[in-house]
Amino acid sequence: MIRVVQFGCGPIGCRIARLAAGRADLQVVAGIDVDPALHGRDLGKVGGGAPLGAAIVGSWDRLPDGAAPALAVHATGSSLRAVAPQLRSLLRAGVDVVSTCEELAFPAGANAAIAGELHDQAVGAGVTLLGTGINPGFVMDAWPLFMTAPCQAVRAIRATRVQDASDRRGPFQRKIGAGLDEAEFRRRAADGEIRHVGLTESAGMIAAGMGWPLDGFTETIEPIMAARAIDTGHVTVAAGQVAGVHQAGAGTVAGRQVITLEFRAAVGLGESWDAVSIDGVPPVEVRIGGGVHGDLGTAAVVVNAIPRVVAAAPGLTTMKDLPPPLAAGA
Amino acid sequence: MIRVVQFGCGPIGCRIARLAAGRADLQVVAGIDVDPALHGRDLGKVGGGAPLGAAIVGSWDRLPDGAAPALAVHATGSSLRAVAPQLRSLLRAGVDVVSTCEELAFPAGANAAIAGELHDQAVGAGVTLLGTGINPGFVMDAWPLFMTAPCQAVRAIRATRVQDASDRRGPFQRKIGAGLDEAEFRRRAADGEIRHVGLTESAGMIAAGMGWPLDGFTETIEPIMAARAIDTGHVTVAAGQVAGVHQAGAGTVAGRQVITLEFRAAVGLGESWDAVSIDGVPPVEVRIGGGVHGDLGTAAVVVNAIPRVVAAAPGLTTMKDLPPPLAAGA
Repeated sequence: MIRVVQFGCGPIGCRIARLAAGRADLQVVAGIDVDPALHGRDLGKVGGGAPLGAAIVGSWDRLPDGAAPALAVHATGSSLRAVAPQLRSLLRAGVDVVSTCEELAFPAGANAAIAGELHDQAVGAGVTLLGTGINPGFVMDAWPLFMTAPCQAVRAIRATRVQDASDRRGPFQRKIGAGLDEAEFRRRAADGEIRHVGLTESAGMIAAGMGWPLDGFTETIEPIMAARAIDTGHVTVAAGQVAGVHQAGAGTVAGRQVITLEFRAAVGLGESWDAVSIDGVPPVEVRIGGGVHGDLGTAAVVVNAIPRVVAAAPGLTTMKDLPPPLAAGA
Repeated sequence: MIRVVQFGCGPIGCRIARLAAGRADLQVVAGIDVDPALHGRDLGKVGGGAPLGAAIVGSWDRLPDGAAPALAVHATGSSLRAVAPQLRSLLRAGVDVVSTCEELAFPAGANAAIAGELHDQAVGAGVTLLGTGINPGFVMDAWPLFMTAPCQAVRAIRATRVQDASDRRGPFQRKIGAGLDEAEFRRRAADGEIRHVGLTESAGMIAAGMGWPLDGFTETIEPIMAARAIDTGHVTVAAGQVAGVHQAGAGTVAGRQVITLEFRAAVGLGESWDAVSIDGVPPVEVRIGGGVHGDLGTAAVVVNAIPRVVAAAPGLTTMKDLPPPLAAGA
């Protein structure tokens, strides 16, 4: 039985806690959140469901006597720089950590230095740290890499994620720009407000797995325009307004494009699928019809990774180096 | 640089050795085979290609001075009972072992006792032992398990492998019964001569990964009949003769079928694909269009697993507990 504390009790954190509480090998002992309105409340009820018997407190020091968590699930933000102090405090407390922080999935650029410090701290504390989720963490990195196992050689990898966002949460629909005018979308995209965080990290993981020393990685963000009016119940989109985002990443080695990542998410898209195309010997063309649901998938990948992280060697690890997280059979 | 010896220098062994020799992180130092006709010959030339600079000898004692392998690739047979003495001799020599022995992929039934002894011996010698290949080892076990990562719960798993065997090696076409009369097929199937070895092992790996205590596993073998004449260049099949095999496995928990494995291989089939269907939350339907080529895939999975096996803890391991074997990027 692995004792788990949920750090960050927003919608995703609450979903993760509920799923973890349902697994026979995990026990959720408490939640931690900075929001005073949540303190003293039950994690399950805050998530809009039945109580889980685990209360939310304001900080590690306030955990109930005997909580004794072995692992923290961290779900507060995408920016590694912003959440690094939280991660440091958890490592200092001596627990393994699985985080939904996108930039922790495979820290790149300026984040590599932060990640190096976190790695050293984790090794010193004898605990393991992992950043994961459905994307980054699975669909556009760990899964494409896994599918190279039957290949004798790989020249290039393409991963595509296409999501009809019509049935996703309102915050997700707004995050992809649904309902904006094109000019406003472009302004927000230029400001970094509209951007799926993870393509850089996914490309980094693939490149490391394949041994490709990338000499370039470019990312583009374009709006997907609505051909007709859509009302999702969360947002209203007029014909000619933005329905969502088309984000693409391209990684090159010596000018040759070896990694292509394509992420399309829009309301009213009419289709959802995930695909991996490996230009290799033999070639591999693999596709998930209907795609993997984002919110369900992120909670699942995080929870399924917990036993693997507990068993792993100390330090910062990544999805490409862990044994596969497995669901629990019902 | 991992120094590799190839134990068993038949067609698959030679393919593996050639692929390993081409990887920057592996060096093939020698071959071992019981066939005196191969002794002194180059592994690459025996495989029908350019020389690899590695000679075949008759036994471990005859390895050239300084060969000093760290790992042996073992490729001699499907029966764990039959090959166990070879595996024991390799463990005694103190090297890690990756074997194509199908029954080693997830030893079941009477093989579990043999596997237990091999595990203890490997732990004692401080080395790691793995049985793998494309099937069992990937398509109908490790891959289906990997695809459960984004699932919150899994009620049942189905894996299907459909192979048009028209362009496979002659021995494979004969192994699946192509060209036989139906009565002869059924006689050989009843005798165990026609049988894909691995369904039991794949089902065992899936059950262990999902935590399903199987109370039953049944396997059926039926011929696929040729509707019209086929000449593959290796075998000639008249209309009404056997074109190949349809083998199915079903695993149950408390009478409920949780694992379904279906393997169809025939000449003239006209289609090849691999698929995994997970009855879960969310459901996952994933398909490899065109399928993964069997001979190319087996050599690849074996070679790609080598660095993972060298890094793994001592003992008998399985594909569900190793970090994913990755191809080398070109």
